[in-house]
Amino acid sequence: MRVRVAVNGFGTIGKRVADAIAKQPDMELVGVTKTRPSFEATRAVEKGYPLYVAGSNGLGAFKAAGLPIAGTLADLLKKVDAVVDASPDKVGKENRKIYDAAGVRAVFQGGEKAEVAEASFNALGNFGACVGKRYLRVVSCNTTGLARAASIVIPNWGVDHWEATLVRRASDPAETKKGPINGIMPTFLLPSHHGPDVRTIFPGLSIATTAVVVPTTLMHVHVNHVFLKRAPAEAGELLSAFRRSPRFHVFAPWEHAEGTPQVMEYARDRGIGFNDMMENVLWEEGVRLDGRDLFFFQAIHQESIVVPENVDAIRAMFELAKDGRESIAKTDKALGLPLH
Amino acid sequence: MRVRVAVNGFGTIGKRVADAIAKQPDMELVGVTKTRPSFEATRAVEKGYPLYVAGSNGLGAFKAAGLPIAGTLADLLKKVDAVVDASPDKVGKENRKIYDAAGVRAVFQGGEKAEVAEASFNALGNFGACVGKRYLRVVSCNTTGLARAASIVIPNWGVDHWEATLVRRASDPAETKKGPINGIMPTFLLPSHHGPDVRTIFPGLSIATTAVVVPTTLMHVHVNHVFLKRAPAEAGELLSAFRRSPRFHVFAPWEHAEGTPQVMEYARDRGIGFNDMMENVLWEEGVRLDGRDLFFFQAIHQESIVVPENVDAIRAMFELAKDGRESIAKTDKALGLPLH
Amino acid sequence: MRVRVAVNGFGTIGKRVADAIAKQPDMELVGVTKTRPSFEATRAVEKGYPLYVAGSNGLGAFKAAGLPIAGTLADLLKKVDAVVDASPDKVGKENRKIYDAAGVRAVFQGGEKAEVAEASFNALGNFGACVGKRYLRVVSCNTTGLARAASIVIPNWGVDHWEATLVRRASDPAETKKGPINGIMPTFLLPSHHGPDVRTIFPGLSIATTAVVVPTTLMHVHVNHVFLKRAPAEAGELLSAFRRSPRFHVFAPWEHAEGTPQVMEYARDRGIGFNDMMENVLWEEGVRLDGRDLFFFQAIHQESIVVPENVDAIRAMFELAKDGRESIAKTDKALGLPLH
Amino acid sequence: MRVRVAVNGFGTIGKRVADAIAKQPDMELVGVTKTRPSFEATRAVEKGYPLYVAGSNGLGAFKAAGLPIAGTLADLLKKVDAVVDASPDKVGKENRKIYDAAGVRAVFQGGEKAEVAEASFNALGNFGACVGKRYLRVVSCNTTGLARAASIVIPNWGVDHWEATLVRRASDPAETKKGPINGIMPTFLLPSHHGPDVRTIFPGLSIATTAVVVPTTLMHVHVNHVFLKRAPAEAGELLSAFRRSPRFHVFAPWEHAEGTPQVMEYARDRGIGFNDMMENVLWEEGVRLDGRDLFFFQAIHQESIVVPENVDAIRAMFELAKDGRESIAKTDKALGLPLH
Repeated sequence: MRVRVAVNGFGTIGKRVADAIAKQPDMELVGVTKTRPSFEATRAVEKGYPLYVAGSNGLGAFKAAGLPIAGTLADLLKKVDAVVDASPDKVGKENRKIYDAAGVRAVFQGGEKAEVAEASFNALGNFGACVGKRYLRVVSCNTTGLARAASIVIPNWGVDHWEATLVRRASDPAETKKGPINGIMPTFLLPSHHGPDVRTIFPGLSIATTAVVVPTTLMHVHVNHVFLKRAPAEAGELLSAFRRSPRFHVFAPWEHAEGTPQVMEYARDRGIGFNDMMENVLWEEGVRLDGRDLFFFQAIHQESIVVPENVDAIRAMFELAKDGRESIAKTDKALGLPLH
Repeated sequence: MRVRVAVNGFGTIGKRVADAIAKQPDMELVGVTKTRPSFEATRAVEKGYPLYVAGSNGLGAFKAAGLPIAGTLADLLKKVDAVVDASPDKVGKENRKIYDAAGVRAVFQGGEKAEVAEASFNALGNFGACVGKRYLRVVSCNTTGLARAASIVIPNWGVDHWEATLVRRASDPAETKKGPINGIMPTFLLPSHHGPDVRTIFPGLSIATTAVVVPTTLMHVHVNHVFLKRAPAEAGELLSAFRRSPRFHVFAPWEHAEGTPQVMEYARDRGIGFNDMMENVLWEEGVRLDGRDLFFFQAIHQESIVVPENVDAIRAMFELAKDGRESIAKTDKALGLPLH
Repeated sequence: MRVRVAVNGFGTIGKRVADAIAKQPDMELVGVTKTRPSFEATRAVEKGYPLYVAGSNGLGAFKAAGLPIAGTLADLLKKVDAVVDASPDKVGKENRKIYDAAGVRAVFQGGEKAEVAEASFNALGNFGACVGKRYLRVVSCNTTGLARAASIVIPNWGVDHWEATLVRRASDPAETKKGPINGIMPTFLLPSHHGPDVRTIFPGLSIATTAVVVPTTLMHVHVNHVFLKRAPAEAGELLSAFRRSPRFHVFAPWEHAEGTPQVMEYARDRGIGFNDMMENVLWEEGVRLDGRDLFFFQAIHQESIVVPENVDAIRAMFELAKDGRESIAKTDKALGLPLH
Repeated sequence: MRVRVAVNGFGTIGKRVADAIAKQPDMELVGVTKTRPSFEATRAVEKGYPLYVAGSNGLGAFKAAGLPIAGTLADLLKKVDAVVDASPDKVGKENRKIYDAAGVRAVFQGGEKAEVAEASFNALGNFGACVGKRYLRVVSCNTTGLARAASIVIPNWGVDHWEATLVRRASDPAETKKGPINGIMPTFLLPSHHGPDVRTIFPGLSIATTAVVVPTTLMHVHVNHVFLKRAPAEAGELLSAFRRSPRFHVFAPWEHAEGTPQVMEYARDRGIGFNDMMENVLWEEGVRLDGRDLFFFQAIHQESIVVPENVDAIRAMFELAKDGRESIAKTDKALGLPLH
């Protein structure tokens, strides 16, 4: 029997998660919601996803656009075991009441506070701790990237302290009303909220994060300096560990992936999803070991990195896999991601 | 019997044209060339395209990267009937000598001067005039966009004069060394070279084009004002003509495709090629008729608009279709583009 | 006796107009208003401009910041003969009622509709028609640029038709919440509102304007194609006419001012105002004459081009100059602009 | 007697240093050099700076542009005691031979390797160590910013370790051929060269720096985490120390200087130089103390921060001040910078 899933919201995250769930052998995508007609709504219909209306706008606009509507969010929730909440930041908290009333389990996104759910989730980081929960929250794109990296570094060499500066893209590619166009905006929360958020996955980790926002739409870049407890024998040991792990992609120098534009070009060449790069992206030249000092850059595709995590969160909830590795392998195979 | 085709150059245009040819039932992609290893070269190998070395760098770098090489450009040319030259601007002219010597027909790109070939080519515009030629030149992305539009407007309503300002993207997404980052650069050739280039397809057309370069990577936008000979009955007649034509895409207002970022988002949702938009993109709200005055915006995806044109050019050369419409229908079906 | 002037609003336009008025021998800057403390408010105080509070925020925040306040907008209006309204778009319309009640004359900006005032104003274009009015509206930056150019072209060679595409900067340099970051946004009003706005200065002019918004902060660029009634003898005649006129700056090729970034660099070198460029900027290489067809680019500094126009509008109101040329000469001398 | 100074190169740095020297009471600007005519060359002439030709282009182009030339670089060097080398990166090394032959002292910029000079220089950091040298090198903009901050932090509270991520602007405002337009480019030297460069000023300092390049033209931003030896009593102690120091500017929250675009707007309002911000820029909200952990952002105006340092370097060479503080006070007074 497959878990029946709804996706509430069909924007940047929702449309990706819907596709991902539709591809899983142990899940069924029952429907998705939109608040207004758009080319994205049309695309849902073309893909055969039953379309439901969320919000207060009503059916009129959809009818005028010729888009068939299967019902309202309330109708949809009656047909599913779980819902992935892909609504805008802070709206999930309000939706939680609706899900409670409908008696469905729910996965929230990282734009919500941790309190919205029973636990925060990262597949490589803490799958086990989330098994059987009714409410989970997939941590944000940046926190997911950090948690994944920590899940490799901590067990292998230990961490005395982790220092990360997050250079954040200012908007997603199609968010044309956001700036800045020319400038750097520091985030005045020091250290930033990302460090505490990582500790929802790795309690007690000594981590200090800082953030700036820059005028680009493609990816975030993290600049990491990790003070290891034990020195690896050589830098190659580090690179191997990252290369062996699912959800990591390491570029070699001869590949000429100099920065985030080339990484996105690689993603377009590869053709998974919406030119998505669901893995943490590292560069051989961007990893440096000096005794117990580890420096590395990683690029994070804000639009897609949490997509496989949402799938795994559902598996953790419904105990569809015995551990994170099994769930990750299932998810990644279905998504066409490289297997490790 | 299928026409055997080589693609010389596997960059932005070459990799797309290679994919497009590999999908045609009446063509065979025999091989592609690269001058140095890169993730794009790896991708060619993964797709099963035999990889040949062009240029003077030799095989060493490819071997070091573990990429299998089938031979040199000279080796490749012995196996084909035609080559699509997708080398950088002005290099095609030098390559012409090599193709002459090898006795293969060739399609050049719009970065070359018109003199490189026997005729300039646009599928909707002048397919018939190009049948049986040995050397063709697909006009540039901007000229292709203008020629397609002219191929709709001229036969329907006639053109007294065409005025177009081309607002050009400064670089392709992965060309990270080009600017400007913040500013507008006028092109000091007045009128610009695009008007004369359109006349290689529509001789005698009265057209004046101007151009500026702006800091974006996604698409060009053309601002057109056409002085028609005969007034359409209503604006709807115009929109219908564009909507009925292959290689045109018209957005409705309710689709919320406000500008080029949303058009590219649509392309990612649709998932053809490398999130490509091979059609001229128009907006209902961006077409206005006032008597015989026609105003319209069109967006042009510089990376992909010429891709189907290269395929059609080969068909014209080898007389694989009885006219442009037949070739276009074959090409578009193979590429997954909407049929009209 | 000097005309006593208030500037209501001390943002991008207001702070420049205040400086400009403070420099005029026949005007007195009585005070400026701000709605909240900021470094710009501090600067007003440092310059010795009495600071008044506009809006509903009250004095508390100013006191906390240590900024001395001379009173409210109502207090200020009692002390002046005229006010320059430099409030945000559409707020001027509301302010008009306050100015009416206070019995002061007012100059509005181009963000207001023409109906806000008795006449729309451009110093080169229609100074005479505005003499003695109580309410004037300085047309917007783009319209000012077009009207100035028309004021040179119309009397010299006549205009059959004027075609202009406006490539607009998306935000001012410090407006960091506006986008797009990467993309081109067409303005779906075809033709755009700028043409009719030019006709508030030159009634009956045949002009069609179109507009796109692009991700830059520095300047707008206009691409003009003018169909002249009479052909100049040579292109040099055109350049001379522009060069002889106040409020025009023409770059020679050897100056290497390739685009708007270099124009702004020139402005910084020159050091007038806030690195302002109050003139229409043309390039020798960007002017082309072909019979009666005139093509030219002009760059428009959206932050400052209307500044001298506001000064001249006050002179027209109070009949402080016998004609536009006299007012322009006074204004430009006081501002340090080149005299012609 | 005033020290006679030449400035070799009149680009971004050279034109600023020339202005700065011309304003010093104990220095005389004898002349500046350009390699080709441009609006910047014209501006030098307008300011009364004798213009000499550097490079191999000869006098012809200057004559054609109507710019008077006083001679060649060789002529200029005969008339001066010292030269400020403001030539492009790596050219200074070649110029050193010319200066040696001419017997003049020279100040180089941070684009040269440390070996070009007898010592690297920062006015707050190591003025005393540079007194009487014949060749000095002002460290780069980023290193100057770090060295200034270190000169405050080290003597007050000691530094166990300094961690800094440099978020770098990709090009200067008028460098329109450089990218990226949309993307983040990591600098693959880990740690970056800036740390060792700071140690040319503060030998033995434990500092690790990393860098990324982002698509903006205005300023760099440094993200600092300093592990202090001794905890300040409170964060206010830190802010006071920065506020009391010359060459630092600290914004208060009510000033609304949210990021680098607003900082540059402040600089335009202030009107020093070419809208320059020669100070390290900090924000109250961007400084955080947590025990002995100090976090702070600082913005660095790459075009101007080294300008006063070049002036002070000349004073150190010629022993025109008894210490750095005296030199800084003289320089800053002449430049119109706030005195502390």
